Amino acid sequence: MTRAVRRILDAYESDNPGTKANLARMLMAGRLGGTGKMVILPVDQGFEHGPARSFAINPPAYDPHYHFRLAIDAGLNAYAAPLGMLEAGADSFAGQIPTILKVNSSNSWATAKDQAVTAGVDDALRLGCAAIGLTIYPGSEHFDGMVEEARELIAEAKAVGLAAVVWSYPRGGKLSKDGELALDVGAYAAHLACLIGAHIVKVKLPTDHIEQADAKKAYEGGDWSTQAKRVAHVVKACFEGRRLVVFSGGAAKGADAVFADARAIRDGGGNGSIIGRNSFQRPREEALALLDRIIRIYLGRE
Amino acid sequence: MTRAVRRILDAYESDNPGTKANLARMLMAGRLGGTGKMVILPVDQGFEHGPARSFAINPPAYDPHYHFRLAIDAGLNAYAAPLGMLEAGADSFAGQIPTILKVNSSNSWATAKDQAVTAGVDDALRLGCAAIGLTIYPGSEHFDGMVEEARELIAEAKAVGLAAVVWSYPRGGKLSKDGELALDVGAYAAHLACLIGAHIVKVKLPTDHIEQADAKKAYEGGDWSTQAKRVAHVVKACFEGRRLVVFSGGAAKGADAVFADARAIRDGGGNGSIIGRNSFQRPREEALALLDRIIRIYLGRE
Amino acid sequence: MTRAVRRILDAYESDNPGTKANLARMLMAGRLGGTGKMVILPVDQGFEHGPARSFAINPPAYDPHYHFRLAIDAGLNAYAAPLGMLEAGADSFAGQIPTILKVNSSNSWATAKDQAVTAGVDDALRLGCAAIGLTIYPGSEHFDGMVEEARELIAEAKAVGLAAVVWSYPRGGKLSKDGELALDVGAYAAHLACLIGAHIVKVKLPTDHIEQADAKKAYEGGDWSTQAKRVAHVVKACFEGRRLVVFSGGAAKGADAVFADARAIRDGGGNGSIIGRNSFQRPREEALALLDRIIRIYLGRE
Amino acid sequence: MTRAVRRILDAYESDNPGTKANLARMLMAGRLGGTGKMVILPVDQGFEHGPARSFAINPPAYDPHYHFRLAIDAGLNAYAAPLGMLEAGADSFAGQIPTILKVNSSNSWATAKDQAVTAGVDDALRLGCAAIGLTIYPGSEHFDGMVEEARELIAEAKAVGLAAVVWSYPRGGKLSKDGELALDVGAYAAHLACLIGAHIVKVKLPTDHIEQADAKKAYEGGDWSTQAKRVAHVVKACFEGRRLVVFSGGAAKGADAVFADARAIRDGGGNGSIIGRNSFQRPREEALALLDRIIRIYLGRE
Amino acid sequence: MTRAVRRILDAYESDNPGTKANLARMLMAGRLGGTGKMVILPVDQGFEHGPARSFAINPPAYDPHYHFRLAIDAGLNAYAAPLGMLEAGADSFAGQIPTILKVNSSNSWATAKDQAVTAGVDDALRLGCAAIGLTIYPGSEHFDGMVEEARELIAEAKAVGLAAVVWSYPRGGKLSKDGELALDVGAYAAHLACLIGAHIVKVKLPTDHIEQADAKKAYEGGDWSTQAKRVAHVVKACFEGRRLVVFSGGAAKGADAVFADARAIRDGGGNGSIIGRNSFQRPREEALALLDRIIRIYLGRE
Repeated sequence: MTRAVRRILDAYESDNPGTKANLARMLMAGRLGGTGKMVILPVDQGFEHGPARSFAINPPAYDPHYHFRLAIDAGLNAYAAPLGMLEAGADSFAGQIPTILKVNSSNSWATAKDQAVTAGVDDALRLGCAAIGLTIYPGSEHFDGMVEEARELIAEAKAVGLAAVVWSYPRGGKLSKDGELALDVGAYAAHLACLIGAHIVKVKLPTDHIEQADAKKAYEGGDWSTQAKRVAHVVKACFEGRRLVVFSGGAAKGADAVFADARAIRDGGGNGSIIGRNSFQRPREEALALLDRIIRIYLGRE
Repeated sequence: MTRAVRRILDAYESDNPGTKANLARMLMAGRLGGTGKMVILPVDQGFEHGPARSFAINPPAYDPHYHFRLAIDAGLNAYAAPLGMLEAGADSFAGQIPTILKVNSSNSWATAKDQAVTAGVDDALRLGCAAIGLTIYPGSEHFDGMVEEARELIAEAKAVGLAAVVWSYPRGGKLSKDGELALDVGAYAAHLACLIGAHIVKVKLPTDHIEQADAKKAYEGGDWSTQAKRVAHVVKACFEGRRLVVFSGGAAKGADAVFADARAIRDGGGNGSIIGRNSFQRPREEALALLDRIIRIYLGRE
Repeated sequence: MTRAVRRILDAYESDNPGTKANLARMLMAGRLGGTGKMVILPVDQGFEHGPARSFAINPPAYDPHYHFRLAIDAGLNAYAAPLGMLEAGADSFAGQIPTILKVNSSNSWATAKDQAVTAGVDDALRLGCAAIGLTIYPGSEHFDGMVEEARELIAEAKAVGLAAVVWSYPRGGKLSKDGELALDVGAYAAHLACLIGAHIVKVKLPTDHIEQADAKKAYEGGDWSTQAKRVAHVVKACFEGRRLVVFSGGAAKGADAVFADARAIRDGGGNGSIIGRNSFQRPREEALALLDRIIRIYLGRE
Repeated sequence: MTRAVRRILDAYESDNPGTKANLARMLMAGRLGGTGKMVILPVDQGFEHGPARSFAINPPAYDPHYHFRLAIDAGLNAYAAPLGMLEAGADSFAGQIPTILKVNSSNSWATAKDQAVTAGVDDALRLGCAAIGLTIYPGSEHFDGMVEEARELIAEAKAVGLAAVVWSYPRGGKLSKDGELALDVGAYAAHLACLIGAHIVKVKLPTDHIEQADAKKAYEGGDWSTQAKRVAHVVKACFEGRRLVVFSGGAAKGADAVFADARAIRDGGGNGSIIGRNSFQRPREEALALLDRIIRIYLGRE
Repeated sequence: MTRAVRRILDAYESDNPGTKANLARMLMAGRLGGTGKMVILPVDQGFEHGPARSFAINPPAYDPHYHFRLAIDAGLNAYAAPLGMLEAGADSFAGQIPTILKVNSSNSWATAKDQAVTAGVDDALRLGCAAIGLTIYPGSEHFDGMVEEARELIAEAKAVGLAAVVWSYPRGGKLSKDGELALDVGAYAAHLACLIGAHIVKVKLPTDHIEQADAKKAYEGGDWSTQAKRVAHVVKACFEGRRLVVFSGGAAKGADAVFADARAIRDGGGNGSIIGRNSFQRPREEALALLDRIIRIYLGRE
């Protein structure tokens, strides 16, 4: 156990040793193990967008084993996926990489800004996962129900020594499209995830837009011109850094943009990246090269 | 146990021996036993369309025992039906054919694209079933609720060593009538069933229509001109063949069309057929002859 | 135990001995005991229509003991009533007649085609009942919820050795007023009750109207001109006679019409009558005479 | 135990000794103890109308102990109140008067004709209550839900040896304002309470209005001109007197009207009065005098 | 234990020793310990308004430890916060100040006047809290559901020896904006909290507006001209002082206004203040000075 990881774990002061051990499993795994930084591979796009939109561009990715191998070979900290994807490889790759069971999901036909619970804490235990993952939509008219489901799942996970990763994605209700990525909204979303007891928060990289009229005053005079400064603000909203926060890269894009994001996350004090489509929608070798470089950025070598 | 079945079971790597044994029971039963191919008789039309529309054309079929005997005499892999139908014959035919308890149902008067839960996992156990079967409607505004019910039933089934068969029928919401049978939609529906933990997926044979605007790009340049190629795509969406997928024949039709379907399923790598109205709405001898020929197709003899 | 009752019980092949014993209690009770025919007294009109509309015409009927005595003195097979009515006499008449606890109810002010659950299986056990009774409304927009409640109550009853009687009354949704009594609809309603696991089905006597456009073809060419033939069709829909089906008489009417109904039920192979208002809304002596004659009809003496 | 009370208890023939003992506690308490008549003090107006509208007119009544003392000093049979009111005095007055925990409540801002569950059977046990009390609104569009809640609470109470008092107040739906107090409606409401298993029914004194078109015929030719005759009809609707029925006095009014009510209840065979605002909204000495005279009326001395 | 606290505890006569001990923990903590007066620090604004609106004005307050320290250093009676805030400091400050876990929350995007349950009684136990805290909105169309949730949480808390603090904030429905702070509405809101079993009630300081037409008469002739008199009325509505009631200060405002409030609460017989934004949105030293002076007011020294 490194000092960096020890310091992170100490901030989870009310968690039981089981949950801390699972946080440690993720923080000590892969090439970033021990640094306090994380890169996580999430593959829930099959549920969200369907198999062809997710995998046709890189056909080996239709096979659930492909993603386990990619995450392991790239030296990542954890692999996150829905129930079926983990069931199809949990035994073959047992003990080779920490897994996060995504326990709720949306899909392309959903009209409500809501998620269906598609797996349970019992499933996470029997599949040997280190954590459950779940999504909430701050701003949505379904937020109350989502939060009540989330709280129950998180409490259940904590009781059995698992960690909880919360995807906090502002969406729906009165939020404008720009507002979904606004700095004030993103910081609020990250804070809400911390308040309901998340161990690791996942948010999108925020823009410098301020959405809420009531919040404008609080942001006046601040310098939000760089991504790193905006990341630093989100870290502050995560209990002044007492909670791990990782950032997602969004849709597939050019490698340089991905690297720029990683540097901003690192420089702003964020804890890492969660990279899905930008890795598995590239050919395997290209993805490995890209992930290698991201890891090197977090290691401070680029 | 044949090598073909062993290989199929190995892909269900996170299931307990009880569930694997029940999958094996179905895969080793009947004339296709051991080949990895399956033909299943489903009789839930009484719930969906009423007794007269289902059985008046072949009156002996009013008797629940008729269907048990038909499935046994035809050498099928399993017989699937709602609670009452199985209760009425489970003891008489105990041990003679694996049964699948259909645990949810719709009916002719339903206006919502939803299903009522009409039986439970406890019922499947006391009736000696090998699996539960249930329907989800991807695309429906009720999909979230259906998926949450499905996940609970599937988890409960797995915990007690049963298998789960999921009928995944796109329906409702923004889907066009053509879209219900579209290739992209069918592959997505099959993938969703796999993601929520189905052991066996049942879908309809897809057309070459592509429904979702967002998915068009992923299908461009592909050759979807034959049924076999479309079946192969659905198999791919089922975790690259790690999950069994069987196809339904739809409404009663000419025998040649039924045989053509079976050949396409076989050639595309599908795992078999689920044939209801095309068998029990024909006179018994005619149905046996038809099923014999389908089985011979899967055996590669026609 | 007579051969006729033995044959009926054998068809309930998946039920436990407790449930079979309770079916036998009802089939062996009263003057029709052992014949396989049943006449049941139901008194749930107080809930449905209020006390005055139900009992003012025959004031002694305000007293719950009146109905126990009427059913016992007439030599009926069972007495069915809501919770309070049974509580008020269950001890005084313990062991003198099998009772059926009606566990759901509607009332005169209800606008939704739905029923409230007003008693439980535990109540049936503590009151020494042989069965629970419950109503479903095929066709209603609330059907799914009713069926889910029904299935849970039926499963619970079976687990503790009780029988389940299902009142299946088409109502609501797209059904026309004529359609509620249509032959196709009635047969479908009876079939649905069997499919959700009812031991005894209670339906209304059907007319020769065919309601569903899709079902017309299945009924073409059939002879539905007599009540007996229509009863025979409903019996067929009840798993070819593997499930008991009794018919209700509806609102109070002339004695001759009641007798004609009983003869049609008998001739069509139905298992008996459930007669409420036509008995307790007549003076006791008149009711006893009427029930005596109905019983004689089922005994084949009239 | 007097013969009158023994006879009343005998009618509760399916209840366990615990529940009968609690009914006996109420029937044997106070100055009417042993007569089979009851006067009950209910103080739930704080929930319904707020504290000032309830108690400002008689400020000592803000103190929960005031009502315990009033009920004890007046020699009443029981005191009924919501959770907080009983919690605040249950220990000080333990064993001095039977208490009824009101487990559901409405309030001045409610727009739906419904009640919130505000206490449980466990609370009644820990507070040493003899019974739970709850309200249903026959006629309301929320009636089904209220009845399902009521039935569960009543079943739970019976299982642990408590009695259940049901306030049955027609309200909402298609009911006219006059209809809420109509004779047919009141008798129906009382009957419904009995049917769902109430031990003691509380209704309002009915007028001679007949509300339901369908019920008019049943009331034709009856003489409903006096309050006593209308009370007698309600008693009949309570299982021909097999269930206790008490009547409420409504809003505060002149003492003579209160006495006239009591005489009519007594003469009609009702079991007593439940008097809230007419007692605690008068100065204590005046209230004691009024309650003394009501008790004397039930004792047949006035 | 002082006599003042003993007298307060005696009024909680139906609570178990565990709950009384936790009430005593709060009443005996800090500089007001033993006086029967309380000052509580609540920090749930992060959930309600987001982190920047809450903490940007005083950046050290982003750190959850800041608030524990502020409450301890100021010598307060208790610190109340949502799950994540307490989890982040419960171990570091264990035993140094009683904590109240806020178990429901609203947020800036909520449109319904409702709260989501965001923590549970189990969480309060594992975090060593003395009490749970929860909000109800009298007047809201969601009040019934909120009250049912509240009652369950309160009952659960009492069963395990915790206390329950209820924030009773009139809002929604037919209430005018002025009405939310009206005297009649505030007294009613406080009374409702007592009726559902709250140990400590938290309300806003009322104005002299009377909102409800039906309540006007009850307030006529009263002198409501001073804040102290209005506080005294609310105390009366809290079971004539048998329940602790504390008042909130609302949005950040001038120190003099805060002191005037405290004096009115003290003079009216209220039990103290709950001060959030007025303390943590000031620089720490300024906040400590302000809290010191408030405490001195309650000690009667200013």
